Amino acid sequence: MTVTSPKNLTTAELAQKTRRAAQQLAALSNGERNRALAGIAQALEEARADIEAANRADREIAKIEQIPAALYARLKLDGSKLTGAIAGLRDVARLADPIGQVQIQRRLDQGLVLRRLACPVGVLGVIFEARPDAVIQIAALAIKSGNGAILKGGREAVRSCKAIVQAIQAGLISSGIDPAAIQLLTSRAEIAELLRLERDVDLIIPRGSNAFVRYVQDNTRIPVLGHADGICHLYVDASADLDKAAGIALDSKCQYPAACNAIETLLVHRDLLPQGLAAVLTPLHRAQVALRGDAATIAALGDQFPIAPAQPEDWSTEYGELILAIRIVDDLEAAIAHINDYGSHHTDCIVTETAAAAEQFLAQVNSAGVYHNCSTRFADGFRYGFGAEVGISTQKLPPRGPVGLEGLVTYKYQLVGDGHVAASYGGEAAKPFLHEDF
Amino acid sequence: MTVTSPKNLTTAELAQKTRRAAQQLAALSNGERNRALAGIAQALEEARADIEAANRADREIAKIEQIPAALYARLKLDGSKLTGAIAGLRDVARLADPIGQVQIQRRLDQGLVLRRLACPVGVLGVIFEARPDAVIQIAALAIKSGNGAILKGGREAVRSCKAIVQAIQAGLISSGIDPAAIQLLTSRAEIAELLRLERDVDLIIPRGSNAFVRYVQDNTRIPVLGHADGICHLYVDASADLDKAAGIALDSKCQYPAACNAIETLLVHRDLLPQGLAAVLTPLHRAQVALRGDAATIAALGDQFPIAPAQPEDWSTEYGELILAIRIVDDLEAAIAHINDYGSHHTDCIVTETAAAAEQFLAQVNSAGVYHNCSTRFADGFRYGFGAEVGISTQKLPPRGPVGLEGLVTYKYQLVGDGHVAASYGGEAAKPFLHEDF
Repeated sequence: MTVTSPKNLTTAELAQKTRRAAQQLAALSNGERNRALAGIAQALEEARADIEAANRADREIAKIEQIPAALYARLKLDGSKLTGAIAGLRDVARLADPIGQVQIQRRLDQGLVLRRLACPVGVLGVIFEARPDAVIQIAALAIKSGNGAILKGGREAVRSCKAIVQAIQAGLISSGIDPAAIQLLTSRAEIAELLRLERDVDLIIPRGSNAFVRYVQDNTRIPVLGHADGICHLYVDASADLDKAAGIALDSKCQYPAACNAIETLLVHRDLLPQGLAAVLTPLHRAQVALRGDAATIAALGDQFPIAPAQPEDWSTEYGELILAIRIVDDLEAAIAHINDYGSHHTDCIVTETAAAAEQFLAQVNSAGVYHNCSTRFADGFRYGFGAEVGISTQKLPPRGPVGLEGLVTYKYQLVGDGHVAASYGGEAAKPFLHEDF
Repeated sequence: MTVTSPKNLTTAELAQKTRRAAQQLAALSNGERNRALAGIAQALEEARADIEAANRADREIAKIEQIPAALYARLKLDGSKLTGAIAGLRDVARLADPIGQVQIQRRLDQGLVLRRLACPVGVLGVIFEARPDAVIQIAALAIKSGNGAILKGGREAVRSCKAIVQAIQAGLISSGIDPAAIQLLTSRAEIAELLRLERDVDLIIPRGSNAFVRYVQDNTRIPVLGHADGICHLYVDASADLDKAAGIALDSKCQYPAACNAIETLLVHRDLLPQGLAAVLTPLHRAQVALRGDAATIAALGDQFPIAPAQPEDWSTEYGELILAIRIVDDLEAAIAHINDYGSHHTDCIVTETAAAAEQFLAQVNSAGVYHNCSTRFADGFRYGFGAEVGISTQKLPPRGPVGLEGLVTYKYQLVGDGHVAASYGGEAAKPFLHEDF
């Protein structure tokens, strides 16, 4: 077994090898790609002891280096997590084939047929923090969608990632696939090089802190899938059912405050002062959420709850922890304007019993996710039923919102004729086009 | 009638007004947007004399300033061209509604319904050269798709563009629509300002020279629809029908050499030397195409045709005129490798009678358009039957290739519940998701 050793290659050379391997991968049938995934699953099973040993070594060093507890928790890849990751890989194999679908099939003229076909993007550059099990998930999604991938994991997880990629490449070889399809970068300097490879890398997927995603966006001409900020809002309208509002606020803020789809700002209609707002704040306060309110909030409830004065920067801050900014608005329009001005166009929700208010909110809020009477925490590829989540995009253009396998797929136009030339369709004796879909 | 005067506003203020107007436009039905287009068509008819007078003034100055003949030809907007542009506007009204379609409708759980809906992008920034009739086309496409647009035409056409936009705004007002939906920038300095307005402008569409498109791409974080280069190839395979090859080569090179979908390089299989290649070159030579060949081409046919030696930079040059680079390749794989290495991923064609060769070419060439036995000149939104062309994209990710109205449209996810929270679907008593499409 010869495993590709990236050590003697420049990042650019390595990317060229991945591009060539990806071209081969793109030509495989769904069955062949699924068999490759099965081969990888088996190779990972066989390499279990090596992977767990590598992960123990990573963790021992992490302990000595006293990395933050959250990072340490994500670094850990024990038997059950590895079992889960391998099961996840087999789940990806069962997803519908994302490539090859004919999206358009149109007769432009007799014997001149246009087809638009879904096809892989090419080579993915994926940069992520500690979590070594992400390598397995990303490799699975890449192979399922016929793409090559160049991975860069966190420094803390380097031994684990190496052991995993070695097993993945062994699995590819056992399926007759060029192991260069999935490659690992191990030094931080290679990130900057990767970001410059616009000829050979087609899509960058950064998974990390906001600052890191922003760094990536600012330092590459390669398209980036991902978002820097998740500043989500919950607006409680005058006609809200307060039980629903309180439950949704609690879930949206507290169910997993570090997630990008957790809310940072609560907007409340003035008519709900003070009792309505108090009903919403009570469970949040009990859940130890630190409250920061505007003057109207403090005036109404400053004696019932500890509410710090919100500063202007609070409206555009992603806390990622149990802090909530609260602002009182005069009406629905003011809530929509606040969200469009200060939000990050991720996911925003209205709680209301008035259908017209909900409709207006869903139509006018410019966010990837616009919700009515449910928690912002539903913004997630698995919850949406995509079977996988490649990332969440807050850009306006597609792909937008939670992105499943379709985010790793593009299309091409195939036109097949029999000597057809454009001159026949112009000038005085111009033939008309048929434009018949079939 | 009050026409928006952008003179007293900064570009940023103007863009904010356009965003607000676009929000209103997005809420209109297809019928209302079509009525606005009819109102604009009528206003343009009524302003005919003003527009033609403004265009005459532009042309008089252009003559004095001795602008290039091609630019002058594009600047001219006489009665028949204006009639054509207004007819084109009415054609756009007849296109299918690009927004509002439900792309996904899925029950995540009882009472929790996810919908993905097509919606406008928001505000377009469109920068184009001389052609004043482009203003009418772009405004029509923007309004049809529910988007606002900020337009910047060439300095040569400033009077024509002003007269046209004034009529468009009058047409919007007559339909009860905020005229700020379509605005015109008139100074070159405003381009740089426009490119910085990432909060209020969602998509930049540059129409101009390669150098200009590259400048735009390098100077904005706003997504750009368009491509800098159109380096298209025709590969004549060993088994090509030479009549088809000669006809396709002639059309692809000569039908409109300045177009981005004209070919720059002819790749020819070695087995066709010398007679097969001569058959293809003869009509090109008669059509006054200047030939530049590699050593093998010159060795084979240098005595029959005037062939200058091709330099390495010829393989990556878009001539845009009657010049053709010719390279002899050993096999299909070499042709594919040349195209993927040197091309701009626009449109590339194989001429062959061998189905397997065609299949391999269509699968392995990484271009937006991959053609078999037909002219590259078909790469065009109208020829593809899109009814309109917003631009041609050579990026890997969608939208790719000729882009119709769908390039001005994105989508959003609407999730409607009844107090649903994410906590119910996690932990020990986790409810399962239904994920039922309906």
